[in-house]
Amino acid sequence: MIKNIYAELISIGDEILYGQTLDTNSHWISAELDKLGIRVKRKVTVADSEESILNALAEAENNADIVLITGGLGPTKDDLTKPCLAKYFQSDMYLNEEVLADLTDRFAKRGRDLNALNKGQAELPVKCKIVPNQYGTAPGMWFNERGKIFVSMPGVPKEMKYMMEDTVLPDLKELFKTPFLIHQMVRTVGIPESTLAEKLEDWENNLPQEIKLAYLPGLNQVKLRLTASGEDKAKLELLLQQEMDKLYKEVGQYIYGTDESNLAAKVGELLLSKGLTIACAESCTGGHISQLITANSGSSAYYRGSIVPYHNDLKINNLGVKAETIAQYGAVSEETVREMAENVRKLFGADIGVASSGIAGPTGGTPEKPVGTIWVALADGEETQTKLFNFQFDRESNIDLTANSVLNLVRQTLSSK
Amino acid sequence: MIKNIYAELISIGDEILYGQTLDTNSHWISAELDKLGIRVKRKVTVADSEESILNALAEAENNADIVLITGGLGPTKDDLTKPCLAKYFQSDMYLNEEVLADLTDRFAKRGRDLNALNKGQAELPVKCKIVPNQYGTAPGMWFNERGKIFVSMPGVPKEMKYMMEDTVLPDLKELFKTPFLIHQMVRTVGIPESTLAEKLEDWENNLPQEIKLAYLPGLNQVKLRLTASGEDKAKLELLLQQEMDKLYKEVGQYIYGTDESNLAAKVGELLLSKGLTIACAESCTGGHISQLITANSGSSAYYRGSIVPYHNDLKINNLGVKAETIAQYGAVSEETVREMAENVRKLFGADIGVASSGIAGPTGGTPEKPVGTIWVALADGEETQTKLFNFQFDRESNIDLTANSVLNLVRQTLSSK
Repeated sequence: MIKNIYAELISIGDEILYGQTLDTNSHWISAELDKLGIRVKRKVTVADSEESILNALAEAENNADIVLITGGLGPTKDDLTKPCLAKYFQSDMYLNEEVLADLTDRFAKRGRDLNALNKGQAELPVKCKIVPNQYGTAPGMWFNERGKIFVSMPGVPKEMKYMMEDTVLPDLKELFKTPFLIHQMVRTVGIPESTLAEKLEDWENNLPQEIKLAYLPGLNQVKLRLTASGEDKAKLELLLQQEMDKLYKEVGQYIYGTDESNLAAKVGELLLSKGLTIACAESCTGGHISQLITANSGSSAYYRGSIVPYHNDLKINNLGVKAETIAQYGAVSEETVREMAENVRKLFGADIGVASSGIAGPTGGTPEKPVGTIWVALADGEETQTKLFNFQFDRESNIDLTANSVLNLVRQTLSSK
Repeated sequence: MIKNIYAELISIGDEILYGQTLDTNSHWISAELDKLGIRVKRKVTVADSEESILNALAEAENNADIVLITGGLGPTKDDLTKPCLAKYFQSDMYLNEEVLADLTDRFAKRGRDLNALNKGQAELPVKCKIVPNQYGTAPGMWFNERGKIFVSMPGVPKEMKYMMEDTVLPDLKELFKTPFLIHQMVRTVGIPESTLAEKLEDWENNLPQEIKLAYLPGLNQVKLRLTASGEDKAKLELLLQQEMDKLYKEVGQYIYGTDESNLAAKVGELLLSKGLTIACAESCTGGHISQLITANSGSSAYYRGSIVPYHNDLKINNLGVKAETIAQYGAVSEETVREMAENVRKLFGADIGVASSGIAGPTGGTPEKPVGTIWVALADGEETQTKLFNFQFDRESNIDLTANSVLNLVRQTLSSK
């Protein structure tokens, strides 16, 4: 059995704690370490204060084999990471002539002289190795002390990423023997988390010990993540394949993808593979279905266009819905949405026409048609399917659920052909 | 001198540590607590394991007055937050009949029965108070133990935000005496952060000590937050008003709002106040402008509808753009986008027609019209304005920048009338 390698991430900066800066660094670092099979055990964000930083270093040394630190490396007074690391490792400081020459050169190229603050960036703890920084003036610091690795990098994402890719990740890969890990993402749509969990209970209880399952729920989609870990790559791949086969047998109809792709992109792939095109008539979704489809590069190969006839006169005059239909059944009705889907299909010369009409809320509901009453339709020239939803969320969620339900209807229709 | 109130945030979930989910919850919570004058001292993200969660709870109890916990509250096996809290506070569990009745009712409305997993969500530690969850099945838990507040909320952002706004923030505000704070948000559009900072340098350097300025930059909008803190409310309000007046003198033309409202809503307010309506012809934005407008409740009062003529034949046959115009100048041209805006205005019976046509990327660029070349237009019946942009971002950002630029063009045009 190979020992797991654990990392802890420390982000330093008041601006993160005050909610002014979203910390995307630790997210990126996590994903990169995961690819190497190094497990991030914990992430901590602490303030620009000596006490907080020293505590975080001590806790991290206790928890992990590798400690990656971002932030607090600028030239100003509130940047405390370097003096804290020197104190923590009881290391003297020295002026690194190479770093100083590089700094002087960079400033000269921009026609500027080094000031005392900038010069201070070349003063470094004796105990650290330099991690080069192509994009900024603060060098990174690599400490190998008491059997643990500590690396300090700037908080500027571009500088941090350069150091990680150029130095830190390759060196960690060489230094540590890590267990073999395979992650498999499974994307489902159209089934609530609890129903999915119920259907998968037996399967989950019988998973081999090498495989772990996690549920990652969203508003209208649930992702499952299977993680296989061990020493024998071929064995893990086989085990994972066997479990994926079982999973498809149980809930295959809800699975739309096993990669990074989104639902609209999957619908696009299906349309492309069958040489079909789509057009949309969106009332209550107000352009959201179209936006999801066209967010994918290359969508012009299968997407013809859309009309958003928000007012009834546009539904009648510009989309050809019969005035009598709206008068008799209302705009939010099976009859209207059916004509919308059929007409946009013909009008825009597409193979498939989809449509939505409903009350997204929070206003506009009536006793017979309360907020969340939403009709959708799909016309493919042979038949027209319609569906009624009663969503009970806020406007944004009702619109998003409707758009995804329409895309899922397209997916189901194309998958069954 | 008022005592500082400290909070610690705990995010629970392997998916965050593995870099699969970006933790935006703690960012949002930080900003909200900051508005109350509560300082977030530390944020920790830990794994879905009992040991990690119990350790994090003990550390947080030691560090802070308030501990806010997100994640790990789903109905499935890997959701460990509730049992860990029960263990940590040595609390028995009981079946909360009210929560159970609410769950049963929710499921009944959707025509479903409760399964055992869902029913388990109504089992709660005796020592906690329930925090209602309008958008999901997992109730939040509020513990007031050993002089500290612990609140556990789901990781789904919508559910967490509802609980924070509905219960947690108002209750914390009442419970803790925090220094008097006034936050004033100022929303700008159409000016980069560095240009804005340059224009505001003198003003910022002369701000009274009671007022602090923060830049919150986004892709196409920069928000400024002025925070006045002290004891004398009337004095703070006066100071803030004086500085706001100066700010408007410097950069008033870029300011579209000073509240929570978004740019599309502001455009809607302007249209409403002038009794005007709008229609959109969207090519490269693919429905995004329409989606931003219709995301606002009540938009049917000023929004007529849209057409997304993704293919040239739709631009010609369904929007009436002259075939010669496209043949001579191309679909991505000033001439085409001008006709699109003028035609959709007439076709959809609106006062204002806007249009977009461009190359959002990453493919489709040519040497003459590289990716990011985007034309937009606004026709109001008297004149038609056009603008050319050269955005250098990814597809998603190019689309978003274009949509916001169109909305800003509408804002500027209406504001100057």
